[in-house]
Amino acid sequence: MLRVLNKSIRANRCFHTGSIVMGKKVAVVLSGCGVYDGTEVHEASACLVHLSRAGAEVKMFAPDVEQMHSINHVSGEVMDGGRNVLVESARIGRGMVEPLALLNEADFDALVFPGGFGAAKNLSSWAVDNIDCDVNNEVEKTIKDFHSNKKPIRLTCIAPCAGC
Amino acid sequence: MLRVLNKSIRANRCFHTGSIVMGKKVAVVLSGCGVYDGTEVHEASACLVHLSRAGAEVKMFAPDVEQMHSINHVSGEVMDGGRNVLVESARIGRGMVEPLALLNEADFDALVFPGGFGAAKNLSSWAVDNIDCDVNNEVEKTIKDFHSNKKPIRLTCIAPCAGC
Repeated sequence: MLRVLNKSIRANRCFHTGSIVMGKKVAVVLSGCGVYDGTEVHEASACLVHLSRAGAEVKMFAPDVEQMHSINHVSGEVMDGGRNVLVESARIGRGMVEPLALLNEADFDALVFPGGFGAAKNLSSWAVDNIDCDVNNEVEKTIKDFHSNKKPIRLTCIAPCAGC
Repeated sequence: MLRVLNKSIRANRCFHTGSIVMGKKVAVVLSGCGVYDGTEVHEASACLVHLSRAGAEVKMFAPDVEQMHSINHVSGEVMDGGRNVLVESARIGRGMVEPLALLNEADFDALVFPGGFGAAKNLSSWAVDNIDCDVNNEVEKTIKDFHSNKKPIRLTCIAPCAGC
């Protein structure tokens, strides 16, 4: 259904080529901070490193919603206390993460979702509802906007469940 | 005072050489998850990527203590609710982070501290006390053990405040 950045995206290698995204504006959508309840931090970091090396101009976004839950990444158990997807995503973005509601597709050339179970828990309800899942309204609008304007969309690892 | 991994460590480039750390066992000490109250996630990720590429065997550790505080990385303000340094570090380590008390210097060839203000807040009291700071007892013991056995120690960015 969705176009991707190019045909050689496996293992992030597409970004090494440089010229493909040099000067392009890329929106990166995060879903929290931590593989089991948010964005996988190393996938996000790798995306950002390679986009940066290739000369892309990146802005990060995340929905301003409560996480489905918070996972203790040592024990694997659910922790007490709610966390906000935007606020936790800002740990990866060093504060430079804007609410997804402010993402204007017209301002960007491509869209990237790093992986992590936040895509299945916070960007969609895939973790609970599988193929009957709902997708966060802002995520759905963003993907449809980029898709309808034939702009590349990268959905990493488990992130395609937010584009289903 | 402290030896570092080698003379060309700037910008993590030392790890690209491969042979320097191939097969070596490296302990990486984290201080939370997030630049303003823990480990800077991209510095940690870069350290881990380059150690992995160079063939090192890595284990991650963090002190099992409460963070000095939690920072909302969007607003910069202190948030309600305590967080544990080990538990938050495990977001970077995908769960594979052990209590620093279990780190046995004899099992490792080198020691690495990525940066982030957690080094000045959770591994030491530098953020409050500057040169009069206290260092977490487990951190102090670990650094002294590696130093007295002439094993390389890397302290990234602000992390030297934990080795002062």
